[in-house]
Amino acid sequence: MIKTFAAAPMSLFGYGSRKELIPLLKREGVKKALVVTDKVLFEIGIVSKITEVLDEAQIAYTIYKDVTPNPTLDNVENGSARYKEENCDFIVAIGGGSANDCAKAINVLISNGGSIKDYQGGNKSKNKGKLLVAINTTAGTASEISRAYLISDEKEKRKLIFKDDYAMPSIAVNDIELMMGLPKSITAQTGMDALTHAIEGLVSKNNSVLTNILAIKAIELIYKYLPKAVEDLGNVEARDAMAYGQYIAGLSFGNAGLGLVHAMAHQIGATYNLPHGLCNAVLLPEIMEFNKNSCIKDYALIAESIKPIECINMTEKEKASYAVRLIKELSERVGTSQSLTDIGVKEEDIDILAEKSLQDGCIFTSPVMPTKEEIINILRRLM
Amino acid sequence: MIKTFAAAPMSLFGYGSRKELIPLLKREGVKKALVVTDKVLFEIGIVSKITEVLDEAQIAYTIYKDVTPNPTLDNVENGSARYKEENCDFIVAIGGGSANDCAKAINVLISNGGSIKDYQGGNKSKNKGKLLVAINTTAGTASEISRAYLISDEKEKRKLIFKDDYAMPSIAVNDIELMMGLPKSITAQTGMDALTHAIEGLVSKNNSVLTNILAIKAIELIYKYLPKAVEDLGNVEARDAMAYGQYIAGLSFGNAGLGLVHAMAHQIGATYNLPHGLCNAVLLPEIMEFNKNSCIKDYALIAESIKPIECINMTEKEKASYAVRLIKELSERVGTSQSLTDIGVKEEDIDILAEKSLQDGCIFTSPVMPTKEEIINILRRLM
Repeated sequence: MIKTFAAAPMSLFGYGSRKELIPLLKREGVKKALVVTDKVLFEIGIVSKITEVLDEAQIAYTIYKDVTPNPTLDNVENGSARYKEENCDFIVAIGGGSANDCAKAINVLISNGGSIKDYQGGNKSKNKGKLLVAINTTAGTASEISRAYLISDEKEKRKLIFKDDYAMPSIAVNDIELMMGLPKSITAQTGMDALTHAIEGLVSKNNSVLTNILAIKAIELIYKYLPKAVEDLGNVEARDAMAYGQYIAGLSFGNAGLGLVHAMAHQIGATYNLPHGLCNAVLLPEIMEFNKNSCIKDYALIAESIKPIECINMTEKEKASYAVRLIKELSERVGTSQSLTDIGVKEEDIDILAEKSLQDGCIFTSPVMPTKEEIINILRRLM
Repeated sequence: MIKTFAAAPMSLFGYGSRKELIPLLKREGVKKALVVTDKVLFEIGIVSKITEVLDEAQIAYTIYKDVTPNPTLDNVENGSARYKEENCDFIVAIGGGSANDCAKAINVLISNGGSIKDYQGGNKSKNKGKLLVAINTTAGTASEISRAYLISDEKEKRKLIFKDDYAMPSIAVNDIELMMGLPKSITAQTGMDALTHAIEGLVSKNNSVLTNILAIKAIELIYKYLPKAVEDLGNVEARDAMAYGQYIAGLSFGNAGLGLVHAMAHQIGATYNLPHGLCNAVLLPEIMEFNKNSCIKDYALIAESIKPIECINMTEKEKASYAVRLIKELSERVGTSQSLTDIGVKEEDIDILAEKSLQDGCIFTSPVMPTKEEIINILRRLM
């Protein structure tokens, strides 16, 4: 089977690793950064930890900090305008998925012109972007290592989806010093997001030898370290393992694709403005159960990887069921196991949520193609 | 620990995957390639399988096919001159380590000027190179996914070592259709080269969570599929697994570094003009034994990964010894287990080989820093 595999040319890991940007940026000869971020990260001092690095490298910058949790067309337009007004020559994104996604869109827009809407779909831009440093502050969306980005069209109330080789960040930074202050709920939700990436990447119709290796190892790391990270927020070992785990999961799903959990989570998140990781966490075990009979071998591998001793005398089917149970228990342990009613989903929206899920791009690599009724049933069971 | 991780932005895998270059190159808008390769690959028709793809993409090319097995300064100069004379705008390398290494050097030279000697060491070039497509025809050196390259200075009888982020190929191609015709000996030797990359990457002083994950999986794949590839040269599954295995090993050692096997193999290869993979294969089990007490945990992991059931009642030390035995048996099975005398090493050269090994750059990430006497003892035991 022919497979492609995209990655960032350079990635940095470890506590304090943002400082490694100094020699890299000096070598690039860049002069002025557009820093793309949000107000919260600016106010809690995360942004200054990066601008200190730029100061040390004697690189100028201007900060665009208006990125919203679901970045909008306006964010992209305004960020691009700022880039031009201020004569920037590269971009530094600081955040989780939102800032990184917005920065990718700005980069495509400044290098190609027109409206960002022109570049919806796959590889639609013509010119490569500028140097893009993507600094991840959660673990995580893995947006720092993905070619995909989502931008909200507020007028038309929908998310525009882009996947572009030319949107891949040039340098992906996972400096856990920036993640140590994440609260329990965000640590848990973003960790479950990463776990969902790995599991959906593993069973995707478009997986490969390489994406499967990465997915399984990501699942192992996240299963082992997410509870430690949530229960002991200052645990450096757990934070570091989660940073690697989410990155590896990102390399996997970024090349293999996703599935039904994301197809449904996108609709629930957009309709009720809910955190993406929480939506994934609530849906994941039920959809694993739904896919189980088509994924016996992969699920068995999950169970064997995270609980090898316990699996010794089990059949493949037993191992697969055990994997679903282990993931459900993990979600309970880190506090993301809730009903859809708990998080605000309304009975009267179920039909339209199912309808929209069927149209989401992520569904096409799902190992099982569900009917609308099956999606409705999944939603009902989770209410 | 702060770690960096470099990768090619895009990689292609699978039988026939070179054809995926067509949309990628069309999008890049390149007009004329310098094809860097050797006479053998030209004569057996491998090069025409790539130029057919360039024809289909309507991209012109000129073929520089004088690369020698250990590419020389003259190769680099002549290739660069051809690039300029022919007004090329990108480079396509076709081969194992030699053509890819030569192409990296040409790319640095045409983009930076001067002599390639000026860029010895780490990250010495100033300007980024042109688009470089590295097409791997063995499994393998993994040169298509590494920033490092070696060029021979024939006058001074030494190898110049370069490691440059800007030398990383833009597109790495592992199309196993190009590898199906490899004879048994080259399949075995290049496979053992890849296995050595994975094992030295795993125990390197500069390893990371990510390079270890990749190393262990590479070892698993190569241990399982190398005998199949050698014993059944047309086995597509085995060739494909080996292509992934050597690539993953390359991502690992390319970021973690190597060790004593490579430090010694470089000297033996250069002195007697021997295939690099064969030198590694002959040295590997003895040097694993030499490092064993410092690598118990990693070696135990190797044994557990490739023979999990057999390891169940073993101690860590027993597993480590078992791993060394398994690797030695693998080398015997694929026909690369020979004495140094068999391959032409002379008693009277042992002292100078040991002396030079201590000066090789690969030794600095070795888990154990050997004395000259220890290296001499290793060589004597293998005569």
